[in-house]
Amino acid sequence: MSWLKILGAVIVGALLLTVGILLGHFAIPKGGNGPRAPSWVQTVGRDLNESLLQSFMDQVDSGKIRENLKALASQPHMATTKGDEELVKLLLRRWQDPQVGLDSASEDVYGAFLSFPDPQRPNSVAVGVCGSQIFSTRRSEKNVTADQTHADVVQPYAAYAPPGNPRGRLVYANQGKRSDYLELVNMGINLNGTIAITRYGVAGRADKAVNGAEFGVAGVVVYTDPADINDGRASEEETYPNSWYLPPSGVERGSYSRYFGDLLTPYYPAKGNMPGQGRALTHDGIPPIPTQPIGFEDAQTLICNLSGPVAPASWQGSLGCSYHVGPGFRTGGLFPNTSDVQVNVHNQRVIRNSSNVMGFIRGSEEPDRYVLYGNHRDSWVHGAIDPSSGTAVMLEITRVLGKMLKEGKWRPRRSIIFGSWGAEEFGLIGSTEYTEEFYSKLRERSVAYINVDISVFGERPSVLSSVSVYDNWRNHFNRISPSYGVIPNLGSLGAGSDYASFIHYLGITSKDIAYTYDRNKTSARIYPAYHTAFDTFDYADRFIDPGFTSHQAVARTVGNVLLRLADSLILPLNVSDYGEKLDELYSAAAQGDFLANLNANNLSLDPLKAAIGRFKSVAADFNQRITKLKEESPSPLQIRMVNDQIMLLERAFLNTQAFPNQYYYSHVIWASKSSDQATFPGLADAYTSALETGDWDQVQKHLTIVVHAVESAASTLEAVA
Amino acid sequence: MSWLKILGAVIVGALLLTVGILLGHFAIPKGGNGPRAPSWVQTVGRDLNESLLQSFMDQVDSGKIRENLKALASQPHMATTKGDEELVKLLLRRWQDPQVGLDSASEDVYGAFLSFPDPQRPNSVAVGVCGSQIFSTRRSEKNVTADQTHADVVQPYAAYAPPGNPRGRLVYANQGKRSDYLELVNMGINLNGTIAITRYGVAGRADKAVNGAEFGVAGVVVYTDPADINDGRASEEETYPNSWYLPPSGVERGSYSRYFGDLLTPYYPAKGNMPGQGRALTHDGIPPIPTQPIGFEDAQTLICNLSGPVAPASWQGSLGCSYHVGPGFRTGGLFPNTSDVQVNVHNQRVIRNSSNVMGFIRGSEEPDRYVLYGNHRDSWVHGAIDPSSGTAVMLEITRVLGKMLKEGKWRPRRSIIFGSWGAEEFGLIGSTEYTEEFYSKLRERSVAYINVDISVFGERPSVLSSVSVYDNWRNHFNRISPSYGVIPNLGSLGAGSDYASFIHYLGITSKDIAYTYDRNKTSARIYPAYHTAFDTFDYADRFIDPGFTSHQAVARTVGNVLLRLADSLILPLNVSDYGEKLDELYSAAAQGDFLANLNANNLSLDPLKAAIGRFKSVAADFNQRITKLKEESPSPLQIRMVNDQIMLLERAFLNTQAFPNQYYYSHVIWASKSSDQATFPGLADAYTSALETGDWDQVQKHLTIVVHAVESAASTLEAVA
Repeated sequence: MSWLKILGAVIVGALLLTVGILLGHFAIPKGGNGPRAPSWVQTVGRDLNESLLQSFMDQVDSGKIRENLKALASQPHMATTKGDEELVKLLLRRWQDPQVGLDSASEDVYGAFLSFPDPQRPNSVAVGVCGSQIFSTRRSEKNVTADQTHADVVQPYAAYAPPGNPRGRLVYANQGKRSDYLELVNMGINLNGTIAITRYGVAGRADKAVNGAEFGVAGVVVYTDPADINDGRASEEETYPNSWYLPPSGVERGSYSRYFGDLLTPYYPAKGNMPGQGRALTHDGIPPIPTQPIGFEDAQTLICNLSGPVAPASWQGSLGCSYHVGPGFRTGGLFPNTSDVQVNVHNQRVIRNSSNVMGFIRGSEEPDRYVLYGNHRDSWVHGAIDPSSGTAVMLEITRVLGKMLKEGKWRPRRSIIFGSWGAEEFGLIGSTEYTEEFYSKLRERSVAYINVDISVFGERPSVLSSVSVYDNWRNHFNRISPSYGVIPNLGSLGAGSDYASFIHYLGITSKDIAYTYDRNKTSARIYPAYHTAFDTFDYADRFIDPGFTSHQAVARTVGNVLLRLADSLILPLNVSDYGEKLDELYSAAAQGDFLANLNANNLSLDPLKAAIGRFKSVAADFNQRITKLKEESPSPLQIRMVNDQIMLLERAFLNTQAFPNQYYYSHVIWASKSSDQATFPGLADAYTSALETGDWDQVQKHLTIVVHAVESAASTLEAVA
Repeated sequence: MSWLKILGAVIVGALLLTVGILLGHFAIPKGGNGPRAPSWVQTVGRDLNESLLQSFMDQVDSGKIRENLKALASQPHMATTKGDEELVKLLLRRWQDPQVGLDSASEDVYGAFLSFPDPQRPNSVAVGVCGSQIFSTRRSEKNVTADQTHADVVQPYAAYAPPGNPRGRLVYANQGKRSDYLELVNMGINLNGTIAITRYGVAGRADKAVNGAEFGVAGVVVYTDPADINDGRASEEETYPNSWYLPPSGVERGSYSRYFGDLLTPYYPAKGNMPGQGRALTHDGIPPIPTQPIGFEDAQTLICNLSGPVAPASWQGSLGCSYHVGPGFRTGGLFPNTSDVQVNVHNQRVIRNSSNVMGFIRGSEEPDRYVLYGNHRDSWVHGAIDPSSGTAVMLEITRVLGKMLKEGKWRPRRSIIFGSWGAEEFGLIGSTEYTEEFYSKLRERSVAYINVDISVFGERPSVLSSVSVYDNWRNHFNRISPSYGVIPNLGSLGAGSDYASFIHYLGITSKDIAYTYDRNKTSARIYPAYHTAFDTFDYADRFIDPGFTSHQAVARTVGNVLLRLADSLILPLNVSDYGEKLDELYSAAAQGDFLANLNANNLSLDPLKAAIGRFKSVAADFNQRITKLKEESPSPLQIRMVNDQIMLLERAFLNTQAFPNQYYYSHVIWASKSSDQATFPGLADAYTSALETGDWDQVQKHLTIVVHAVESAASTLEAVA
């Protein structure tokens, strides 16, 4: 055999070997070590795609947000009105769009218990006898930009305040706190049968009337003092449309109910098939007496003519006169000093169909895990800022996500549920009924709820610098964390928007996101046009966010949070951070009078200290296990296990026995409290109460509740086996 | 080239090709279609191994169960006594055994609120004045097999009955129901200051005294009538040790509390770090007056000497005389008719450490899913049947599983938790405290709870035929299912054993398993030696289960259920079956007077009917989706998703608002009721109450509660996305 032949044979042999290797590798399924890997092996461990996230960020368009807001705020859209119904259709159209829509969207209707003024018989506050009135408050805001003349602008009223026409001497009662009325009594004023004028702030809307009624007050008037909202500016020249400040005729509308959720159907959805619970409409939740809000122009006419003692210094405001407390009018003023004031309220309570619009994107790997994101749709008038600034942001986020989805570029690991809530302004009705209807499955499957109500409410931001959202946040609102040093701070969620039932009732981790104003630059209680006929697109476009870059920043931030929650393989929530909160709440009790009084009553904080210590140690171990898990090749069920522990941590703090007198509240860390003690809410209230009543058993009970909750949270994070 | 050379070249070529194919297939990891499958791909979808299950069944040894029982019942082991503590050690030893033990076992201690008689001052029921007693009840049972003389036999008493020495005329009050006392009053008898003797049955233990106190009764005596326990047999010759019947001196001990769980710490674990809730020990839960159980030998002496009217026919028993109701004794009897009866009770309430012994087997694929199996450990005396027949079975099951585990032949897919509960006899204390302590994680992770208390309580079974457990069950206790025809029936779980807090408080699917007796052959209320000093190994060995084949059948059945729950890829629980229960409960309301009275009060069952219809339709769809899923190649997360839906279905029926006056009860389908209406418990009670009070709002409320629960259950089973 020649060397050539040998070479040829070797080459042929090598070729055959190569063909064989190729055939063996590609043509024959792996069998020896088990079956060929099923297709889900490729996708089941997929993590967040950072470049997709960047692409999302790049696509968020400030111009489109502006267009959204213009469309959304083009007319008044109070809950269940024509304007609201049209926005329902707009939402459905956007979310069902074949090019940029979601997987699906639907309308979910509840029969909401609402309260409206009577268009035929306007509410008013008047001086003088019937037929010869000397003075009557404006029916509505003054026309400034033509928006105020729209036929659907609802006249100012106090929703849920009962109808009636009480008449009596006027008194000025500051903020309508219980202590304010007490102070008037201490001044020797007989409040029986009086009409109290109070300013917005500190006490809740309903509380001003509930407190007054306790002292015999017959009717309540509420106004916005320029000191509280306008940094003192009160003239037309200084206010909108010349600045972002509230014009003299502006009136804050609002729900005058202490409770959230449909008032007739607590804990059950307000649907036709639910016979209802008939929550007694007792007066502890809504005004027992006629109540009416007015503008500060009208308030000035009333307050600056009062007789009686000068009001305390802390009660004085910016109406341009010395506030007296009454009762009745001074001699030599606008009104004869015998004049009574009459509050005329003709509100009607009705049940009307209110819709949530729900949008849905199916998760690819864990469709049974929900990331929720909601914003209410209903306003009081045009609602450009409240809530349409949030809706405009949500629609831009769903547009970009919908586009990525429809183009086949993206599908989240977990399902995303979008909620456009109805009737929030009347008491978070749409979101609360939703959580009631789907309580069980939402509780079991929800990773987190993100809320954006008002998305931007600062005055025109400074020229945007290159400072990141994170740094800007940290610069303006921060705290010192023992673990991280100076970091952005988070406020506590109360019950001011649609997150309330998610966090308090279902125990779902919740976050509310907004771009707010620099509190060094203004002392305004909230943005000045809040709940008035001046909250318009023009107001937003000229004074709140020209260029809509703040809106864009919010959309990017929210989308970022949303995508990380929906797509991260391991949920991006650090359980250790709860330890810092527990420490903070513990420290407030473990010092000074609080501790001394506990000890004097044979109560020890040692079990609580031990429980928190255990929690922190267990949380640190948990994080180490996650780190280790990531280094291995974890099975999808191992990942799911730690994610379930993270998700359900919040649920471990729920205790349905803890607050028997408070609807919905069951979260031991975040429940509301009336005490000013900075510790766990139930413990704080029980302590403050015990100082008066001596009921230290209740304090003991709440210590048990807190210890049990913290121990349960630790047990949730411990190794499951 | 010769043909030989060509052949050679072809062969060499073929060999090279083959080598290449082999190399390509085995030596090079698949890369083109993604990385090589990780090792968990092989195990994550593992299903129940039927041959392992068969092997388990084969290994269950009746002889070993007999040995277990002999050891367990060798001495009295009332909660927290020396005998109980020794069994704690036995359990730990077995479960920590290196050859046949579990992965781990531990002791979990609670400070349980208990009640014991005073050994120095025995309780009694006596006739005659102090110092010259004519009669006093026995201190304890008569010695029959030497077991009765054991120093640790606790004398008969009514746990939680208060101490005291009331004295008065004796009356016979049948079963101590409220209606029984009323009937006595209607006969013209003044119950004030009397001592009532009542027989066990129908009314709960505590109720006999609670009801009596309402009518002025000063003390209560309780006995077991031979008519109720012995099919009428009352002589020594006819009873143990000559048969399974209760000897004349036998006394049923028991907890006289209506509530379960530690009475001082409802909802919170009775641990040192829990300051406690201080449940008021009010008289609505435990006897307000001294109460004492006695044997029927002593009862005969008292009842057969009563004066007064003859008791109604339904009140007569088998004491061999005509029962009169009193008050007081008859002329010419054993006692002067002026004699008073005195009840002497010296019970003491104490807090003692009671242990649960917890055993654990880690699940391989889903360690965070728990299948729980429990049995209480504490007895009243030797407790051979109650509870040690159950403990003997549990120890044999853990021996076989432990062996398979330690030999590396088996590890369950899900984790298994074994509970040997303490202080069950005092009110399910050990199991309830456990569910309180770990409420949150158990609620989130538990697939099911299996309870075996008394495992066998039939009299000696007929010679075992070849009939299967299933067929035997179906022959003796069945129902007609619309879906399956004649099938074995299941009773409803009340609150009689440790499943109570699992099902009622946590909403965990629960099952209680026992081999019971043929109710055609005996009318005994329960096995006759129940809670007496005759419940011994000898009794079990000779009369209950000679050969221990019934115990073996129970062990095999329980093990079978346990392994199927722990190892099946898809949980073996058919959600559709709940539809039949809902239909049954609905039908009971949708007819006759019930429906007529609802309609007369403007209440409609239509929403309930619609909700149940939706549930059934959704459940059928769910089962179809599972069938389809099995045919595909489902990802582990898809399997987990449907399993979570199955697991959490039971939780959707929970409503913590539904029964505000009943501790722990929150399951809308299985809660307790006092009404005899066979519909949903809350609805039944509200209806029965409304017939008296006219409060139809409560009926409406409970209709809402039921509709909401059924709708929630349907939502749980619907496609998640």
